[in-house]
Amino acid sequence: MLILMHPTASTEEVDAVAEKVRTLGYVPHKMPGAQRIAVAITGNHGPVDPAHFSHLPDVVEAVSITKPWKLASRETHPHDTVISIKTPTATVASILGGGTFAVIGGPCAVETREYTLTAARAVKAAGGQFLRGGAYKPRTSPYAFQGTKVDGLKLLAEARAETGLPVVTEVLDTAHVEIVAEYADILQIGTRNAQNFALLEAVSQVRKPVLLKRGMSSTIQEFLMAAEYIVKGGNYQVIMCERGIRTFEPMTRNTLDLGSIPLIKRLTHLPVVVDPSHATGDSLLVRPMARAALAAGADGIMVDVHPEPEKALCDGPQSLRPHEFAELMDQLRAMAEVLKVQMP
Amino acid sequence: MLILMHPTASTEEVDAVAEKVRTLGYVPHKMPGAQRIAVAITGNHGPVDPAHFSHLPDVVEAVSITKPWKLASRETHPHDTVISIKTPTATVASILGGGTFAVIGGPCAVETREYTLTAARAVKAAGGQFLRGGAYKPRTSPYAFQGTKVDGLKLLAEARAETGLPVVTEVLDTAHVEIVAEYADILQIGTRNAQNFALLEAVSQVRKPVLLKRGMSSTIQEFLMAAEYIVKGGNYQVIMCERGIRTFEPMTRNTLDLGSIPLIKRLTHLPVVVDPSHATGDSLLVRPMARAALAAGADGIMVDVHPEPEKALCDGPQSLRPHEFAELMDQLRAMAEVLKVQMP
Amino acid sequence: MLILMHPTASTEEVDAVAEKVRTLGYVPHKMPGAQRIAVAITGNHGPVDPAHFSHLPDVVEAVSITKPWKLASRETHPHDTVISIKTPTATVASILGGGTFAVIGGPCAVETREYTLTAARAVKAAGGQFLRGGAYKPRTSPYAFQGTKVDGLKLLAEARAETGLPVVTEVLDTAHVEIVAEYADILQIGTRNAQNFALLEAVSQVRKPVLLKRGMSSTIQEFLMAAEYIVKGGNYQVIMCERGIRTFEPMTRNTLDLGSIPLIKRLTHLPVVVDPSHATGDSLLVRPMARAALAAGADGIMVDVHPEPEKALCDGPQSLRPHEFAELMDQLRAMAEVLKVQMP
Amino acid sequence: MLILMHPTASTEEVDAVAEKVRTLGYVPHKMPGAQRIAVAITGNHGPVDPAHFSHLPDVVEAVSITKPWKLASRETHPHDTVISIKTPTATVASILGGGTFAVIGGPCAVETREYTLTAARAVKAAGGQFLRGGAYKPRTSPYAFQGTKVDGLKLLAEARAETGLPVVTEVLDTAHVEIVAEYADILQIGTRNAQNFALLEAVSQVRKPVLLKRGMSSTIQEFLMAAEYIVKGGNYQVIMCERGIRTFEPMTRNTLDLGSIPLIKRLTHLPVVVDPSHATGDSLLVRPMARAALAAGADGIMVDVHPEPEKALCDGPQSLRPHEFAELMDQLRAMAEVLKVQMP
Repeated sequence: MLILMHPTASTEEVDAVAEKVRTLGYVPHKMPGAQRIAVAITGNHGPVDPAHFSHLPDVVEAVSITKPWKLASRETHPHDTVISIKTPTATVASILGGGTFAVIGGPCAVETREYTLTAARAVKAAGGQFLRGGAYKPRTSPYAFQGTKVDGLKLLAEARAETGLPVVTEVLDTAHVEIVAEYADILQIGTRNAQNFALLEAVSQVRKPVLLKRGMSSTIQEFLMAAEYIVKGGNYQVIMCERGIRTFEPMTRNTLDLGSIPLIKRLTHLPVVVDPSHATGDSLLVRPMARAALAAGADGIMVDVHPEPEKALCDGPQSLRPHEFAELMDQLRAMAEVLKVQMP
Repeated sequence: MLILMHPTASTEEVDAVAEKVRTLGYVPHKMPGAQRIAVAITGNHGPVDPAHFSHLPDVVEAVSITKPWKLASRETHPHDTVISIKTPTATVASILGGGTFAVIGGPCAVETREYTLTAARAVKAAGGQFLRGGAYKPRTSPYAFQGTKVDGLKLLAEARAETGLPVVTEVLDTAHVEIVAEYADILQIGTRNAQNFALLEAVSQVRKPVLLKRGMSSTIQEFLMAAEYIVKGGNYQVIMCERGIRTFEPMTRNTLDLGSIPLIKRLTHLPVVVDPSHATGDSLLVRPMARAALAAGADGIMVDVHPEPEKALCDGPQSLRPHEFAELMDQLRAMAEVLKVQMP
Repeated sequence: MLILMHPTASTEEVDAVAEKVRTLGYVPHKMPGAQRIAVAITGNHGPVDPAHFSHLPDVVEAVSITKPWKLASRETHPHDTVISIKTPTATVASILGGGTFAVIGGPCAVETREYTLTAARAVKAAGGQFLRGGAYKPRTSPYAFQGTKVDGLKLLAEARAETGLPVVTEVLDTAHVEIVAEYADILQIGTRNAQNFALLEAVSQVRKPVLLKRGMSSTIQEFLMAAEYIVKGGNYQVIMCERGIRTFEPMTRNTLDLGSIPLIKRLTHLPVVVDPSHATGDSLLVRPMARAALAAGADGIMVDVHPEPEKALCDGPQSLRPHEFAELMDQLRAMAEVLKVQMP
Repeated sequence: MLILMHPTASTEEVDAVAEKVRTLGYVPHKMPGAQRIAVAITGNHGPVDPAHFSHLPDVVEAVSITKPWKLASRETHPHDTVISIKTPTATVASILGGGTFAVIGGPCAVETREYTLTAARAVKAAGGQFLRGGAYKPRTSPYAFQGTKVDGLKLLAEARAETGLPVVTEVLDTAHVEIVAEYADILQIGTRNAQNFALLEAVSQVRKPVLLKRGMSSTIQEFLMAAEYIVKGGNYQVIMCERGIRTFEPMTRNTLDLGSIPLIKRLTHLPVVVDPSHATGDSLLVRPMARAALAAGADGIMVDVHPEPEKALCDGPQSLRPHEFAELMDQLRAMAEVLKVQMP
């Protein structure tokens, strides 16, 4: 249920609606907007009688929400969610969503200080807006490199201080949310944790954006429901990330589902980015898929960049070298102009 | 095994190599080219001794072919195969492959004369280069519309005569190859017949190009092996068509695998096109996926165009209206310029 | 629509109903049975008015058929279809369906006379009821062994004459239906032709049973619709064969979907058999999966048996040796007794 | 690397080998057995020189381990791992693995005290050996019933006290491991946490068996690597649970991969059970799939049992009623006798 109010409704009038929702035993969610103000209701089982609200001042109408991802749906919030982060050393904010195309670049895993800073500088120099890097690494084998953990977080913070780029890094467990949130600007939930509901609830309590990867076997509906876990907890800053799904095809690591991009953008107000590096696992495919993501309407991409891919401890074969990344950025900028998409 | 010869080798010298191959009990395939001349050998089980050829005039070297799709592989024929068709009423040839981006448009199924001609004119007017339309329709249900068959082929021929556009149409059975080849410029093999080997052999004997759709559960290797059936039979004019694969995702009809485009182009010299209409089943997704196909490096797209999609007997929801198709063509042309791809 | 009649209705009365159906422009299908007589109607678009039939003698009621596989559905024909074949040299008929568990065994491909006869004798000796063997072989590579064709059919006929076992063999193309039907007792449609609708229509015109394999990417609904193509053409003797579907798992050739067995048996009156050999591709998995098929309620299995699997030209690794097959038969007979299933 | 020792080697001699491993900077894992004693080595990158060990007393030989799931592999530990639990109120231990067929039954979710006790009594009465029930429930929607949590754990403990059945219950998050381990006899890791490596490491530190469900998109190799995370941490009591994988088929919730059972048992010494309830989501399919699991060689099954499935808060349609469960148990016992499997 969504209670729509006049855009001129006062704070007190909106509070009165929210209070009424609480009185009925449900949870109110205020949804401010330029064209309209809305209060979404969750916690109800079955329909809520609109008559409870129709007499309250400045209420226009009560409409039901048809999608199970209530708060994440376009019905509830028709305008694009925009995520804007300005780090202390940045001159301008990095923007994701709302008609811009943002590029997140950096090493798959944070390894040495030199690699991390070199990669960060390359991303910055080529016009990337966010720095990625994994400090906590989920690995299929318990014998594989498991990440540099807190040391890695500190290196990312140093790279941010130097470049001004906000940092995206993965959190693997509820027990690490606090420490990762201390260093990260955006918390990443990986594909293997896409339905780790305890972790989704934990990051819903953090006041930092979350980049949520699609589970490699998640349907689009399940992906949206995972986002709903985070939004329901009060964290509206969720970035959806398509990163390929598991299919029968063995020649690529996963099958990048670019058809999901326009579909997800129709169904939710949250921004959608694409990770062509992890989807394909092959640097020769990363560039065509990055261009295709822009052409398909994505709000951005997340790309592995490494100074020496052949020496990377994790996912080297899919990493772009700095000059390859810079060439890709040039291509994307030229395309963005034609497609009438903002790209700084 | 591939016998490489000097580009200046004479016809007699090439014939001598081919004759030697036949003497050994194998099958020779002449592969002319600007930079080199090659004779590929098939029919051998196990390695062939290069010494058989080294003494023949103008033979440079004998190299083994590592891929099981011997004749379709880039190793055997490094340059792009280009398909060029000029119908009697056309002023210029329609080109597919070799650095151009070709658009094949038209109704999913050939229904009435009026619809067919209207769609063909719309495709021509907007700059499309080939006309598609199904006369023989493979349908999951035996109770669904099965196509207009020979009447449909005649309507397509009439539309070709008026517009000059070469016609692409599907053949479902070996028994229909002759009649379809009489009317069609390009024979289409559908996704459900992607491993109908008798049909692949039958079209390998026709001297017209074949548009081969990827099976909805074919791996890329199986797709290339299906092409090899056609090329082995002597028909080198094969167009690979990515049209989506079957996955667990229910919100789109199939999952368009755009990552396959750069991969297939690396593995074969044959041109690759994308069918965003059948992959997604949703006209709102067709345009972003058409743009993404161009950005991913495809040699063209095949798109359903119908004057009144809501009245179509087959696949209406995925068809573009003429003005939507024209808008898409404008976008593609603008993108093609930036991507340095030819588009007439 | 299904017109239900008294079990005592006369031939003339049933003919009168069928004639009425024809008069209305539809196609009648007589469905005799012990408990009831029914006439199914196909060819209608939209509902048929029951009033057309209610006044005819011995008509009980007219009910609509809810499933799209009209004639193959349990609604239309509640009793199990039973297929019974007695070859000239057999002492008793081989039975498939209706509470028995039938075993079809033999080589994947018909190779030499000796192998074929040895395998057939082993199948007969161990209590198998049908002989399988491929004379026309669908192969992913055009360079792989393509079968012994008509020579193979003749060897199968010789093996049938000696053992009395009815022969199951694959037909790949409409052009071969006549010759294969001349030799075979049951025509097999392979997984790659599961939606080759021209071939399904061709075998619907033959008066011999058809063993229809599930497409490796066919849903259960598509599998039933493929059967409907054959039944609609007038051939009610269709055997459904689950042979594994294509999934992301690389350790087995395909994923055998045994859950489909009870589901398909609920939805259709046609018998269902399982091919554990082609599903797994591994003789060590064939036996547990054969036992599981019986436990899951299948009407039979089809198993590769070869005297010397290590020398087989096709699918050796999945073939059982004669003594392994005999041991499996003993296990199945012991299980069948406990499960109260007939096994000769 | 595996150091094989004489079965008569003394504790001191085994300790000497382990100490040598530590000296080299690696981790030793003692693997006692009736026929042989072995010390496995992990933590090495690249091969270890066998000469380090050949001179130590009672060392027979040093062999390399070829599988990446080193400690879980049959190579390292050829004999079946057997899990045996005797609760204080039980007269005999409940056994899983090593030639017995164990049945784990109970409600999907722990709801009321009455339902839980009724279900537990039904499981006990019919001969089930373990009680299942979810107190913490992973749900796709944040608005769905999330489980009774600690209250549920207490109800399970009460049911255990009354029936003597050991309790299997799910743990969703590292933060809950301690409380769940306090009440549970076996900790369950659900399919959505199959690659939640932080959780796998947490349960590897608990001295209670772990029932590990296969991820719905995990390959068999990934499934084994997940088990390796637990075994590597020192917890050798892992039960593998096949519960269906995600495929394109929409008529069943997932596709139960019974072919994985003989394969996994060949590759690991850990016991393997099957969950036909969650795989199919349909109580009519549960019984045939339970029988098929036994026939395929599984070490047991886990089945949803609920006194009133139509009122269940979670997964009612897949739950067996007590009398259906009892009938199934009778069938399984009859089959087990024929298959020469122990079933109490």
